Order: sequence, then structure tokens, then C-alpha cells
Amino acid sequence: MLTDPLDAVFAPRRIAVVGASDRPGTVGRLVWDNLAGFPGEVVPVSRAATVDGRPAYPDLTDVPGELDLVVVAVAADAVPEVIRSAAARGLPAAVLLSAGFAETGPAGAALQRETVDAARAGGVRLVGPNCFGVQNCDLPLNASIAAGLPPGGGISLVTQSGSYGMAAHTLGREESIGFAKVYAAGNAADLTATDVLRYLADDPATTVICLLLESIPDPRDFLAVARTAASAKPVLATVTGRSASGRRAAASHTASLAGDDALRDALLRQAGVVRTRTGLGMLDAARLLAAQPLPTGPRVGVVTNSGGTGVELVDLLTDEGLSVPELSPGLRARLAELLPPYASTANPVDITPVWRRFPELYPAALRLLAESGEVDVLVPVLLARAASTEVAEALLDPVAGLAVPVYPCWVAGRGQQAAADLLQAGGVPCLPWPERAAAAVGAAVRSAAGLTSTASRAEPARVDGPPSRRPVPERPEEVPDFLRGAGIPVVDTVRCSSPEEAAAAAARLGGDVVLKLDVPHKTDVGGVRLSPMDVRAAAAELLVLPCRAPLLVQPRRHGLELVVGATREPGYGPVVMVGLGGVHVEVLGDVRFALAPVTAAEAHDLLRSLRGAALLDGVRGAPPVDVTAVAELVATVSRLMTDHPPVTGLDLNPVLAGPHGCVAVDWHLRVR
Amino acid sequence: MLTDPLDAVFAPRRIAVVGASDRPGTVGRLVWDNLAGFPGEVVPVSRAATVDGRPAYPDLTDVPGELDLVVVAVAADAVPEVIRSAAARGLPAAVLLSAGFAETGPAGAALQRETVDAARAGGVRLVGPNCFGVQNCDLPLNASIAAGLPPGGGISLVTQSGSYGMAAHTLGREESIGFAKVYAAGNAADLTATDVLRYLADDPATTVICLLLESIPDPRDFLAVARTAASAKPVLATVTGRSASGRRAAASHTASLAGDDALRDALLRQAGVVRTRTGLGMLDAARLLAAQPLPTGPRVGVVTNSGGTGVELVDLLTDEGLSVPELSPGLRARLAELLPPYASTANPVDITPVWRRFPELYPAALRLLAESGEVDVLVPVLLARAASTEVAEALLDPVAGLAVPVYPCWVAGRGQQAAADLLQAGGVPCLPWPERAAAAVGAAVRSAAGLTSTASRAEPARVDGPPSRRPVPERPEEVPDFLRGAGIPVVDTVRCSSPEEAAAAAARLGGDVVLKLDVPHKTDVGGVRLSPMDVRAAAAELLVLPCRAPLLVQPRRHGLELVVGATREPGYGPVVMVGLGGVHVEVLGDVRFALAPVTAAEAHDLLRSLRGAALLDGVRGAPPVDVTAVAELVATVSRLMTDHPPVTGLDLNPVLAGPHGCVAVDWHLRVR
Repeated sequence: MLTDPLDAVFAPRRIAVVGASDRPGTVGRLVWDNLAGFPGEVVPVSRAATVDGRPAYPDLTDVPGELDLVVVAVAADAVPEVIRSAAARGLPAAVLLSAGFAETGPAGAALQRETVDAARAGGVRLVGPNCFGVQNCDLPLNASIAAGLPPGGGISLVTQSGSYGMAAHTLGREESIGFAKVYAAGNAADLTATDVLRYLADDPATTVICLLLESIPDPRDFLAVARTAASAKPVLATVTGRSASGRRAAASHTASLAGDDALRDALLRQAGVVRTRTGLGMLDAARLLAAQPLPTGPRVGVVTNSGGTGVELVDLLTDEGLSVPELSPGLRARLAELLPPYASTANPVDITPVWRRFPELYPAALRLLAESGEVDVLVPVLLARAASTEVAEALLDPVAGLAVPVYPCWVAGRGQQAAADLLQAGGVPCLPWPERAAAAVGAAVRSAAGLTSTASRAEPARVDGPPSRRPVPERPEEVPDFLRGAGIPVVDTVRCSSPEEAAAAAARLGGDVVLKLDVPHKTDVGGVRLSPMDVRAAAAELLVLPCRAPLLVQPRRHGLELVVGATREPGYGPVVMVGLGGVHVEVLGDVRFALAPVTAAEAHDLLRSLRGAALLDGVRGAPPVDVTAVAELVATVSRLMTDHPPVTGLDLNPVLAGPHGCVAVDWHLRVR
Repeated sequence: MLTDPLDAVFAPRRIAVVGASDRPGTVGRLVWDNLAGFPGEVVPVSRAATVDGRPAYPDLTDVPGELDLVVVAVAADAVPEVIRSAAARGLPAAVLLSAGFAETGPAGAALQRETVDAARAGGVRLVGPNCFGVQNCDLPLNASIAAGLPPGGGISLVTQSGSYGMAAHTLGREESIGFAKVYAAGNAADLTATDVLRYLADDPATTVICLLLESIPDPRDFLAVARTAASAKPVLATVTGRSASGRRAAASHTASLAGDDALRDALLRQAGVVRTRTGLGMLDAARLLAAQPLPTGPRVGVVTNSGGTGVELVDLLTDEGLSVPELSPGLRARLAELLPPYASTANPVDITPVWRRFPELYPAALRLLAESGEVDVLVPVLLARAASTEVAEALLDPVAGLAVPVYPCWVAGRGQQAAADLLQAGGVPCLPWPERAAAAVGAAVRSAAGLTSTASRAEPARVDGPPSRRPVPERPEEVPDFLRGAGIPVVDTVRCSSPEEAAAAAARLGGDVVLKLDVPHKTDVGGVRLSPMDVRAAAAELLVLPCRAPLLVQPRRHGLELVVGATREPGYGPVVMVGLGGVHVEVLGDVRFALAPVTAAEAHDLLRSLRGAALLDGVRGAPPVDVTAVAELVATVSRLMTDHPPVTGLDLNPVLAGPHGCVAVDWHLRVR
């Protein structure tokens, strides 16, 4: 008996199919047929005496001998009993193809709970229910509803939606995309994408991991597992439901700017997982990564037989953040020797419509570019007459010898598909049309780059020393000292309850001061006054405002307004936020999130990824901001959150950052 | 003889082919073969005695009888003489398939000039050179290098790149996209895209116009023509070279923020032309518009057999600015009666994998949605078993009866292509994969919406009354009065040259004042002081600064910082700009452009299209801005530019806008 349930799922030696059937059109028949190529024994469990001429057993418990996996294709209401039988005989895992569970409403949800309870009680791990099934192309194992397996290869796909399981099968066969394992999570009632990701991270057959998810149910676990996986091999993810995730209700809350999707983005970025907008885009990028050498940089060399398509492709590659650099004079001279007189040796290299010479010129131009060291990725546009069997045949061997990946952009009619198929079968993936090509190349380059950088920080931010467990403040006046004690720079603040105290405090502080009522949203209630002013008079005015709050007197500070915050989010735990303050945060939502803890280096990256990051360097004569100090502040806030579980949130808004350090001038600490 | 040269190009009655040939592989042979279906006579001009068994004439001038068009397929250096012959016999137009002109370097450019000179001297209009050719699917006329015509239909395509001419042919045949006319501009040495657009605007056979351009050589003419065309029928454009268009060099210039591409964007938006990122995206949107009723709004109803693909599609439709609204309880109840018990009657309507019922359920669900009035567009996801001939056949008739457009998203393997072909041949365009579907639906909806709004303002902004031709100021001190005279609100400003004058001016103005040196980039040189201050001392300090400039004294004003500007751009003429000031313009580039003249209503739309437009409504307790006043200011600036040709540029930066009006507090007028 296999002890790891995912070994049982992906590499069983003997399988039972409960609900196996001879009746055409049933799932039980379908999966029985699909398992025909399985090298081990498949045992039918059915009310029928035989299935496919093989004697069937009425119940799982009746099957003699050892079993690793049961595939279940009976009606939903019969599933709990099957799981109890599986538990009774100590089976490690079951694949539940059956539908009719939580996806159908409350009754189905109850049935699903009953099934999971039975599984947990009996030590059976569940795939599904309501799923496409699982495949292991190497075994081969096709415990799915797809009529066949995709070709074998390095990509493993975990998909919540069965439609992308089907796509793996269809695209895999049509475009020679090689898969190791396909896992359809369906309702993911027991085993989660995180469990499978953990398994695939260590699976030697898997070189690229694709995740198509509708949710991340266990974000903290997922982060840890994905971080490890993405430091070892490319991990790509499409998480759908982006639009459904609305912003939080509480607009007063700093973290209200975090829609769920911003948190998912933060999580995936921290894990080193490249997010793609669509499942197709993910599979496209994956096959580039799996079939060709990994790109080592963002510089793309384009070789085309159509100037117009070349220009369009360059636009799209630039949109992806890639560069299409000018080539050196030396390289251009070598290209000029090779190409016809009217060819362009700029990048794109336009070899003109000399179609009779295409089989010679494409490989030669690609080799010159690949060996130049001036580009990291090659995209030949194979359009119309260049999308020919002759060109495909001429490219295969030379491309195999290049250290730089070659990703053809294919533009041709169906009649020429055989030529693309030839290239693809030879390990040169072709991407139809410039938009699909550019998106895939962009994601592949980001993924390869992330792999390099994630590899060096697969470990989460280390928290040095024992946690500081200082008591959290109970009264507002204790907050500044608490924050200072945690390492957060906070402006000098004197609490006053009379105009006389305020005037004395202002005199003691000296210079320009700020008076502010100690209430949230001070500005909205007119609760802030700035020097120059008659401090006593201003304080008197503020103290009689209807909101009735103590008065804070602070020296007036200047600098770029930033906002730094932290919150605890269900599943995500402590999350820090940093952004440009004022209208940037309120109107433009220019903020970034990260799951705590974060290092100062990670915080620095967050700051640099802001849309308005140029403000940090100083504009309109403003001095550049001490970004290091701000990054350290973010790391300190993240540490405060991990050290102090009773703290549920913190807003530092604004933090004023100057050329030498930064300081919080307003804060709101939330304590459980 | 046809008098309109484009009538001669698209609807000739008798054609000569110069360079017609029997030699396989030559362009002369190719186009001769392609013209085989032409209903009129095609006369070969060749050094050979016969072509295709028909007697050939040695020179164009030897051809007896009347000719409307000559198609030229000889070597480039022989082309000028052919054009002279065409001129000698009064031919209105020539299609120059020959390459070897400006695209090949200086010698080719000289040959192109010689050809154009000969054409202009002789009254011959030219298509190309270096072009794919022209097609009229209705005649039929295939004066191109594509081996056949696309199916007939309403789309006309003007493409600078021959590759999209080829795509029209390939996609047209494979996806049943119906074309009226295809025109490949090639080097566009004479006839421009604007000329062809003018023709197609009036062409009754053309219902949708597609433009694939690499540049807009005559922006003002193009705007006028495109505005008229787009008020009559959908006009879509892809203008490539987006990334190549860098920002202008002069950073001090307001319009330096206008890369060429921002101007193109402004131009297309003003013309009511919908811009797509790629040629394929444009053709996709065009075929939706041509094949189905025009969408009357952005509300999409999705019917799917895959929940996961439905979610992905909804994300992508939302990205496109479309809505996928919740359905009413009544409609949901009617859907529930129709669908299986576990189906979702939300939007997407998920009919579950009950594949045997697909042929019944898809049409019925679509009809319910179409007749509900709750959605404007229907996107059925036809995936896997729903992508079948049975479903296609079941959909054709019902869809034809709906007033709402139906745009299926097709996800299936090649083996199922025949079913898509069936739908497409029946006028129901299928878009493969959610991303391509969503992009096309988005562009189609925007185009249809633009048609409605452009139709009501096909006329450019009217300039009432005779132009005010006041003399433009020659000295800086005259500028404020000049601007006021033009209707621009400008803050009171006193020019001073001594501390005493400044103190007196400040006393006269009363209240808080601003001192500023009258130099560009005042802040950068420390040339600005604000109250409270000792005016005399501050003025003394400013007046001894090295930049040595007069001092301006103004009352201090408050409000939201905006920037309004104008410039004259080659080809574009006067262009106005409006944006959010301060860091918004400098760091975020949050500005919009429009070709002058603009109405206040158009200026209002520009303001509302800013990313930070929410600032206009007041944030953080700030009052909402008088947007009407700002819009009027923009219109006034635009009028100033059209009235005063010597004015080459104007920057109002900042304009301070409050709840009642706005005022420019700093300005820079540039005069020729």
C-alpha cells in the first residue's frame, strides 16, 4: 500500500472503478475505457456481473487483493457509502468523478460534508468531487473523463475547472504540449491545490507547474509551499474571479484598499509565482518554458518576413515589458552579408519576401542573433510562405543547437498547420498571431527571471531574535511610545486638554507646529491647524468642536506623504501595505500589499513597484526620499504584526519621508 | 472612362496588366491568374507575344480601346515609364504591385519620387507601390497577390501591411468573414488611407471599415474624413508603431507629454474611430459588427456549459469595461423552469454538462435572455461537447430571429472546427478562447456605442463668430491682458522691479500674496515665495537671484491644481491638453489631448476621462471643482489657438480650480 495519498492518486498499481459500466454515455463507462492503457490491473465494481467482460464485484470491500486507488463514478448519494468501504479496506485515496455535491446547493453540500467526514474518519484522501479526474502521462494513467492523454512531457497542471483539463488534452495533442500530470480539483472538498503543489514541487517528472484556481483557500500554507516550489521550477498561476472580488466595505480602514484580488496578487508575487490573465495564456507560457531553454533576460530578437507584422509584434512585446534592442553595428554587418540587399538588419530583422531563400535565411539569421549575446529570446515570425514545411524542416536542427530559446510566432491558414505541427513535435512551440505570442513570451520571461530571483530567497523573511511581546497599549496616549518601542519613528506629540497646555507645548517644541484633534479623519471634521497661528486661539476653537477629543501638538514636519499600514486578513494573516499618500492612495489606489513578515529588501521592491515610484526620487525640485528608511519602516511594521497577535491593524497615514529618514505623524492602532 | 480614380481602382470595366507573364512564380503570372474571375476584359501587356494564349501588347499605349485601370507587375525601374504611358492615354489609376521603391533605401526612394512625379504630371493616381494590391469581392476583382478572394460581405479593409491583406483572404475563407473591398496601401506614395476612407464612407457595399496603419500622414484631413465616416458606419483602426513613438525632446514644453501615440489616440477618439491593439483584434470586432445586429449597450449575458470558463470570461469582459449584470428574479425563475435542477440561473447562466440537452437548452436560454431586455449582447460559451454540429444546427435559426447580437466563444479541438464553420457560414461568428472573444466583444460594443454618439456630432466643434485676430503680445507684461481678452481667467498680477514696488503691490492687493520671478520653472530656481512673509525682504532676496527677472505679485489663490495647454504639432495643427497638475502631470502623465477646436462638451469628456478624475469631485473634504468652468477654459484655449495662428503654444500651469470657477496663476505663451 502506498503511504503518500498523492502517490496513490498519481502512481497507483491497482485501481478499482466503482460504477464501472458497459452502458455507453455513462461516466462509469467512459473512465473504464480511458483506463484501458493503465499498466496495472483495473477492477470493476458494479451491480452488473461483468464489465467489459471482466467479472465485477458488487462492493469495494469484495475486491480481493491490494488496491491503491478507487475511482468513483456512481451517483452522488451513493458516494459516502463507497468512501466508507474504501476506509474499511484502508485505501489511501479516492478520485470522485461524481457530480451533484456542493456545486448544486445545500443538499449537495450536506452530502459533500458527509463524504468528507467519512473520508477523514477513515483516512481516505479525496480528489474532487465533481471533477475531471487525474492523469499521469508517464505511467500512463488516465483516470479522467478525457478520451485520451496529452503527450508526455514536463508540464503538470492543477485545475479547478474541468474545462482546462480538457484543454490540456486537446491542446496537448494538437500543439505537442507535453504533460507530466493533470489534476482536476473540482470542488476540492479534501485535497487542495496546495497539497498537490507540494507534491509536484518534489516530483522529478514535473518541470513546470500550472495552477488554474478559482480561489486560494489556504493562503498562508499556499505561500510557503508555492515559495518552495517556485524556487525549484517555474510555477504559473491563473486565479479567476478577479472581477468578483470587490473592495472591502469599510472605507475608513487602510486595508479597505485591498480587494481580495490585490491580496492574491501580493501572495503570488511573494511566492515567485507568475500570474497570467487566462488559462490559455498560462499553458502557452508553460509550453515555451518546457520545450525550450529558459530565457535568461528580456531582450528579444525578432526575425520576420513581414515588416508590418514585425512592427505590431514589437509593440506587443514592449507592452509586456520586454525590450527589442537595436543590434550592434558588427552584428548588423554580419546580417547584411547574409541577407538580400533590401533586407533590414535592424531589430526586427526583416528578411523581405524572398521566399525561396527562407529555409536558408531563417536558421542563419537566428543563429547569428543567438550567438551574438545581444538578445536573450528569439521570436521568428513565420507568416504566409514562411509558415511552410520547408522552413519548419530547415529550422528544427539548427534551433536545437541554440542556447537561446526560439519561440516562433505563427501566422498562416489551416492548410499550413502541418508545418507548425512538425516544428512543435520537434520541440519548437509555435504561437499563433502576435498577441498570443507576445503574451506568452512575456510570461515565460517573467517566470524565468522570477526563478532566478526566487531561488535566492526561497526562505521567507527571517525574524531575528525572539518576538518582542510587549504589552499592547490600552489607551491612545500610550500608542506613540508603543510604536517607538517597536522601532517605528513617530513624531514628538504632546497631548493637551486646554488652550494653555497647547500654547505651552508649542512653545516648548519651538518652530512651526501642528494642532490636531485626536480623532480619526481629523481633516474631515476640520480638526487640524498649522502654523503660523495663534496657538492658544486655535486650540480653543478645536477643543469646542462637537467631536470633543483631546488635542495633539506636534512639530510641523515636511516630506513626501506616504501611507504604511497593516491588517490581519482571514486566511492571509498579517498583511502590510505601503503606498503614496494623499490622493494617490484615495483616488488612484496606488498601494502594494505583502504578507508579513517582509524584509526591508522586499519592502524596497514593493515601493519601487508603485506606479508613482518616480516621486520617491524627487520631482519639482523636491529631494529624493530616503527609500531605505521607508523600506525599513515597512519591515518594522510587519515585525510588529507578527510579534503582537493582539494588534489587529495599524495605519500610519501619513508617513512623511525626506532625504534623511521618515516619520509617522498620524497613526491608528487597532487592538483586539 | 471613370472619373473617380477610386472607382477605377475598385470597379474598373477593362484592365491592363503590365508585366503579365506565363512564367510561374512571377508576380505578373500570379496577378494574371488572380484576375481570371474578373467579369470585364483583362489585357496583357508584355514583351511576350501572348500571355495565357491571349495576344499581348508590347506597351500600354498600344492597347486599343478604353481602359480604366492598369495593374503593374514589372521591375521597379521600369515603372516610371509605364506610368508615363498610362498618363499618355489618360488612365485614371494604377495599382503598383512592384517592389523596390522607398522601402529599399535612397535609390528606391528616388525611383518612387520619379514615379509619383510622372503620375501627378499625367493625372494618374497610384495604389502602392510595394503593395499587396486591391480586391473588390462583389465585382469580383482580385488585383492582388492573394490566390483568391475572401467571401463577399460588408467589411472593407485598408491595410498598409500586405500581411493583413493576406489575413483577410485566409481568415475570410476559414471563418466566413465577408469583405466588400480590400485595399493595401503599401508605400502609399500617392493615394493615402484618408483618400480610401473618404471613398469607403460613401460606398454602399461597405458597412464596416477597418484601417491597419503604420502612420497617419495627414492627421487633419484624416480627422475630418474619419469623423464623417464614423458617423455613418463603424470605423475601427489599428495604428502600429505605438512603442516607437517616443516622447518629445523638449521637457519644458507642455506638449512634450504628447508622444505621437497620444496624439493619434486623441485623433482617433475625436473622430469616433475605435482603436484596437492588433489587426487580428480589429478583424474580430469587425466581423461581429458585420455579421450580427449592432449591440445597443454594454450588458453581456453569458450562457455556458463550463462554470470555470464562464468565470474567466466574466473577468475578461469586465476588463473590457463591459458588465455582466445579475438577472432579475423573474428572468431567473423562467430560466430555472427551462434548465436542469442544478443549473445556475445567475449570469453566467451555467446549463451544466447535460450534453444531450445542449441543442435544446442553448437556443432556449439565449432566447429568454434576448427577450428579457436585461442584456444587450449574448455570449454563449460553446465548449467541448457544446461545440458540436448538433448545437450549431440548433442555434442557427433561433439566433437569426433575435434582435440582440450573439457572439459565441468557441473552445474546442480542430476536429470540431466543422461545427464552428457551420455557425460562421450562417452568420454567427465564433471567437476562439475567452481572451479573443472578450477583446472582440469589447471593441464591438465600444464601436457601436461610438456610432451612436458620433452620429450626433459628426460636425467638428463650431467656432461661433468671426475669429478674433487681436495682435499677439510682444512683451511678457502684455500677456495677461491678451489672455483675459481671449476669455481666459488670469489672476491679478502686478509686475515689479523693486522691493518697494512689490510691498506696495502686496498692500494694494491685500490678504495673502505670492511673489514669483517671471521665469520658466520658477520653483526650480527658488523663485517663489508665499505669504506669510516680509514682502519687501522676500522681494529683495528674489530680485538678486542670478536669473535676474522681474517680479510678479499676485493674490494667493487656492484650489485643485490643473494644467491646461496648447501647442501646434506638425500635421496635427493646434492641439489642446488638459490634465491634473503637479505630480499628476509630471510623474503619472495623467493628461488628455484633443485637436482644436474642441467644444466645452468635448473638453468635459476629456476631463472625465482622466485617471484621477475623482479628484474633480473633491476628496478629503475638498469641495468639488467647477468642471464646467474648466471645460470652458479648455474650449477657450482651443479657440485662442485657432484664432491666432502666430501663437505656437500656451501653457497654463497651474490652473487653480475651485467650486466656483478656475483661474490661471502661471502662464507661458509662445509666439512665432
